This record gives sequence, structure tokens and C-alpha cells, in this order.
Amino acid sequence: MSAVLLQQYREEIRTELDRVVSFWLTYSHDTKYGGFFTCIDKKGQVYDDLKYVWLQGRQYWDKSVIYERNTKVICVDICFDSIGGEFLRQFARVPSDSPTWKCAFCLTKDGKPVKIQRSIFSECFYIMAMDELSRVTGDKDMQAEAEQMMDHIIHWVRVDPSELGRTKLPGDEPMNSMAVPMMLLSLVQQLTEERDQDLVEKYRETGHWCVQKILQHIQRGGMAILENVSLEGAELNGCQGRLQNPGHALEAGWFLLQFCGTHGDESLQLAAISKFIEPQFQRGWDKEHGGFFYFLDVDGHCPTQLEWSMKLWWPHCEALIALLMAYNNTKKPTLLDRFTEVYEYTFSHFSDPENGEWFGYLTQEGKVALDFKGGPFKGFFHVPRCLYMCERILDGLLGDKN
Amino acid sequence: MSAVLLQQYREEIRTELDRVVSFWLTYSHDTKYGGFFTCIDKKGQVYDDLKYVWLQGRQYWDKSVIYERNTKVICVDICFDSIGGEFLRQFARVPSDSPTWKCAFCLTKDGKPVKIQRSIFSECFYIMAMDELSRVTGDKDMQAEAEQMMDHIIHWVRVDPSELGRTKLPGDEPMNSMAVPMMLLSLVQQLTEERDQDLVEKYRETGHWCVQKILQHIQRGGMAILENVSLEGAELNGCQGRLQNPGHALEAGWFLLQFCGTHGDESLQLAAISKFIEPQFQRGWDKEHGGFFYFLDVDGHCPTQLEWSMKLWWPHCEALIALLMAYNNTKKPTLLDRFTEVYEYTFSHFSDPENGEWFGYLTQEGKVALDFKGGPFKGFFHVPRCLYMCERILDGLLGDKN
Repeated sequence: MSAVLLQQYREEIRTELDRVVSFWLTYSHDTKYGGFFTCIDKKGQVYDDLKYVWLQGRQYWDKSVIYERNTKVICVDICFDSIGGEFLRQFARVPSDSPTWKCAFCLTKDGKPVKIQRSIFSECFYIMAMDELSRVTGDKDMQAEAEQMMDHIIHWVRVDPSELGRTKLPGDEPMNSMAVPMMLLSLVQQLTEERDQDLVEKYRETGHWCVQKILQHIQRGGMAILENVSLEGAELNGCQGRLQNPGHALEAGWFLLQFCGTHGDESLQLAAISKFIEPQFQRGWDKEHGGFFYFLDVDGHCPTQLEWSMKLWWPHCEALIALLMAYNNTKKPTLLDRFTEVYEYTFSHFSDPENGEWFGYLTQEGKVALDFKGGPFKGFFHVPRCLYMCERILDGLLGDKN
Repeated sequence: MSAVLLQQYREEIRTELDRVVSFWLTYSHDTKYGGFFTCIDKKGQVYDDLKYVWLQGRQYWDKSVIYERNTKVICVDICFDSIGGEFLRQFARVPSDSPTWKCAFCLTKDGKPVKIQRSIFSECFYIMAMDELSRVTGDKDMQAEAEQMMDHIIHWVRVDPSELGRTKLPGDEPMNSMAVPMMLLSLVQQLTEERDQDLVEKYRETGHWCVQKILQHIQRGGMAILENVSLEGAELNGCQGRLQNPGHALEAGWFLLQFCGTHGDESLQLAAISKFIEPQFQRGWDKEHGGFFYFLDVDGHCPTQLEWSMKLWWPHCEALIALLMAYNNTKKPTLLDRFTEVYEYTFSHFSDPENGEWFGYLTQEGKVALDFKGGPFKGFFHVPRCLYMCERILDGLLGDKN
């Protein structure tokens, strides 16, 4: 593939990233209470003022990461965010008589908790935000807060989950759900990158534990990535045992590649590409209509998730990062061909040339099924992260910064 | 409309009901552990052996109700169920050190609890099963169990929900969600029908309270049924306040009509038909592709539920009952025209002539999106209830039983 085409992609990605950043800068700030509105319709209008903590945390993270890239556009925004970050810091953790590190899943516009999930994810995105903001602002308290929360999450995941609030039930065997080690691995990356050696050492073992837990999801003699396995890495019975999530497998693939970048492990790089990334195009791509399925059953049963055949934006974002990163590592032409195919589908189906940002949810046939730009699970995160990372990788491939 | 057409519908409905009953009799019994498998694929194969308590309870209820109709086919089955009912009785309520009336949402095939919901619905379907089985078997203990559970549910709903396990949060204002008074009203009906006067008196006030709570959902000057309102009956902010669920409105409509049948309230009958039933065809029907939308936003925003535009089997079941019952009460021809239109869509899209039973989930355009016959939320309940009730109403309309 010619450098001209890569140049063209980079130009398009740059333009798209500017438009996406601009969309959220324009519409998502709550200038009264701080924090971000995340339920934003196709034209930018707020249709619900609840503030979802996953998305608050992610938005701070993404804004902060992109800050570097685009100082002029973002600097005013980040100044606001460093004050706005106070919204998350003040309200995300649930007030309680007894000390708790649980975060709310959802807050009212003025910060009152509406709902708590019995999982670790709100807390994880809180860490991302706190750590990243501490990097931009130099606020050491935020860094310490992120580190303390991380230690609680590691305790919940690896030692005792009882503080999460789930009743222990005899039929509910603990399992290894891929989201958990993936999330933890990305947090280890987040907290240790360019930090001092003590912190790197502190989380080294956890990072390796996460990698092993992710690799346990390679099943069926290497022919499938299954979303849920037993704690020992065995296949589970029933629907949850047979569940495949191609977007998640692709995301895990590039998380592992990123880890290899720091730790230089060649066999891990091979596993990431040959088990997690390359085969998803064969397994998860809809050959009739294009796009990645959201869920599949490894034995070909119909998944029970109503949205299984829909095309969601985020698996396509993860695919673009994974395929380009894998190509960058190997220079294998088929990986760039796959990237091109996903790129064409993604830009022609998800991006909204009229009002900016991307639609999130298409039917199997590729029609927009839900036309909002932000909702309870879609915010300023996957799209800008994808565009930003692809732009950086293309910079490297093209050997310059222009 | 001619009696000939009604006769034809009744014949088709009878045949369909026999096929549906036969499907579940053939495939859903767990002859080893008791109870029912509910995850059953399009041809009848069990694809997951988890036992969902909502569906266990509903299946006992429906089997028992249909028992009357079709003694020969069902009698063997019910004999089994009265033993099988022990599965539910033994395992549905969660074992605990402290006495609890909470039921599991989901059990392993041998009865170990897998998940508990923080709502009242597993418990409600447990009551339906216990009460109905007590009617078939004469088991007074089962009746007493149902009544005690009912008293707990009334306490959770009307006095103190803390035993449900939800943390009370400052941003989570208690609200009137239509499912709750609907469910309670149907349980009052269940527990008191043809029971002695003491029991009727005991639940009379609760029944009237439920009706008032359902009527609070008439909003926008009578032009909308909103799924969630405040405890005082005011419209709520945001997506949850604007949510419409046409199938639920139709179901509430016939619940109210049924209540009128017992209590003879003409103004309530008028409200049921003119507010809950008739307008749903205008508001909730997809004029382009046919079928009822699953969710809508009263202000025309895109709902955040990914399945909002899908066509689900159960709203169509509720529509058939509601329209035929409303026609039976009023003899208004347009109601029968609507019934006919829904009937044609439903039988041509959901019923599977090849393998029996109905598909549950179609795309907006009417293509089968999930091809199983039973899943975590679809079992032996809405379809046979609909067919059985429509057959009974048609019997009445046609003035005979043949």
C-alpha cells in the first residue's frame, strides 16, 4: 500500500479528530455545576442531564491525553477541566457513614448519586481521570487518590470482592471475565507510564497477572477468544461460557501489544496478533453486510443479547487501533488491507458529516438505529482515543509529524 | 365483521395454542431435577440449562390455567408439575442465615441461586405459581406461602423497600414505575379470584391503590401513558420520565378492564379503553413496517434502549388481548379492525410454522433477529396466555364453546 494512501488516511483522521473534539467542546460542558453532559443528541442538544461516571472519567482522560496534541484548541478546556475535575472528585465516590471507595455509576447534574453498580468499572474510570488530570495539572493529591483507588480495586479483584455489594451465592461461581484483567492492565499502564521506578515496581506483578488472565481467554485450541472462563482458565457451560465479543478481543489484542512495547515480549506479541487480532476479521466480521457483530456464540447458537447483530461504534474503533498497531509492529500487508476494509466501513457508516461526531448504534444492515451522539454508554472516549492513536501510529509509519 | 371471520380466528388460535403447548411439553421439562428449561432454541434444543425464576413461576401458572381447557393433553404434565412445583418451592427463595423472602432471579439446573435482582418480580411470579398450583392440587400450604409472600411484597412496595437490597441514594428519588402497580394488581386478582370473602376483603384496598397508581401514568393532558412518574403522579425529568412502552400500556389497559369486570366501574372502563388501549395504535404502531415499537420517547427523542425499534412478541400478545377484550366490552367496530391488523402482523411474523412456538425478537423491518423460542426473558407465558384468553373471549363473542 502506498504512502500516499496512508497520508490520505492521516489527513482524514486529523480532520475527523478535530471535528469530534470540537463537538464535545461545544456541547458537553456543564458550565453551571461542572462535569460533562453525556446524553447529547445528533445535533448536540442535551436530552438528559444525568452524568454517567464511566463517561465523566473517560472524558477527562481523553481530553487530557489529546491536550498534548492540540494545545491551542484544548488549553482553555483543560483549565476548565482542572476545576471541573473537582466535580468528579467531589461527587463520584459515594458518601457513606462507613468509609467506602465505591463510586456511583450515575449522578444527577449537581452530583447526587443515582445508581451504584456492583462492579469495578466506575472506579476504574475514576482512576483514569484522576491520574491523567494529575499529569496535566501537577496535582499530587489526584495522583495519590488514583493510586489508593487502584489498591482497592486490586483488593476487590484479587482478594475479596465483598465490598462491591454482591451477595455471595452458591450458584454464582467466580469467573474470569475478560473485561476485568483488561481494565486492570490498562490502569497499570496508565499509572506507571513515565512515573518513577518505585511505582513501576509496585504494579509490575499485577500487570503480569493481568496478561496471564487475558491469555486464559484463548480457548478451543487457540481457535477462539471466549469472553468468560473459569478462574483456572477452563471453558464455562452455557451461554456465558460460549460468548464471543469480537470488539473486546481486538481491544485486548492491542492492550497486549502495548504491554509488549514496554516489556518487549516477542511470543506475547505473536499471541496478541495471531490469536486476538487477525482471526477476528474471519470470526466476527459480517460477510453479508460488513461491520463487526457485537456478540457471537462460539457454537453458532443465537446469542441472548438483543443487540448481538447490531454494529456498534466502539468495536470498530478498537479494530482500527488493533489492526494499525499490529501492522506497525509486523509490516504484514494483509493487516493493512484489513485496516483499510474496516476504515472504509467505519468512516462511511458511523461518522456524521452533517453534525459531527459518530453515530454509535447501527442495525445489522448498517442503518443508524439510535441517532444520538452521546448516551449512557457512549461519550467522549472510544472515537477520539481511536483517532488520536491511529494518527500517532500513522505519524510513526510515515516517518514524520506533518 | 362477520362471525365467520371470528370463527376462523378462533380455529387458528386453538390450533396455535395446541402447538405452543405441545412445544413446551415436549422440550422444556427437566425430568432429572424438576423445574423447566427455558433457554430453548428454534427447534426445541436446550442451549443453556440455567433456570430463570420469572419463567419457572410463569410456566407453572400458565400450565395450570390451561389445564382446565385441555385436560387430556395436560393432565400428565400437571401431575408432574405438582411434584415439579417442589423445585420452585424448594429453591426459588434464597437460603440465608437471616430469614429472607427474596427469591433468586436465576438458578442452576439443580437449584443453586446464581443471581438476585433488587426488584420484586421473581417474588411476584413465585406467587403466581404457588397460588395457581394450590388451586390445581388443593395444597393449602402453597396457598399460604403465596399469601405470605404477597404480604412481604406489599410491605416492600408500600412501606419499606430496604430488604430488596438497594442502597438508598440521595439522587435516586423513589418513583412510580408502571410495572409495579400492574404486577401487584394482577396478583390481587390471582389471589382473590374465587377465593373466600375474607381474602377478597384483605386485598381490596391494595387493588384500588394499584388502580390509582396505574392511572397516575396518564400524562400530558390524557395524551400519553408514561412508564415512570413521581410518587405523586407528576412527570419526571429526562429519558426515564419521557419513556413510553406501548406494550405495557396495552397490558395495563386489559388489567384495568379485568378489574372493571370484577368491580363494575364504568368510568374506569372508559379510561382503560380510551387512554391505555385505543391510542397505542396511533402512538406505538410502526406505520412504515408494521408492529409495535418496544420503547418510544414522548418528545420524539431517540430512546437510549438499544432495542427500542425492535418488534417483540409480548407487546403484540398484550395488544391482541387488550383489543379483543375492549371490543368484547364495547362492540366498537374499529377495535376489531385494530385487532385484525395486529393479528395479521403477529401471526405472519412471530409464529414459526416449521418448528412451532413463536420467535420473540424481530428487527424493525420484521426480520427474525434472535431465533430462539425461549431465553432469559421469554418462556411459556405471554403466547399461551394470549391465545388462551383470546380463545375464551371469542367463545363468548360467538356465543358457544364449539
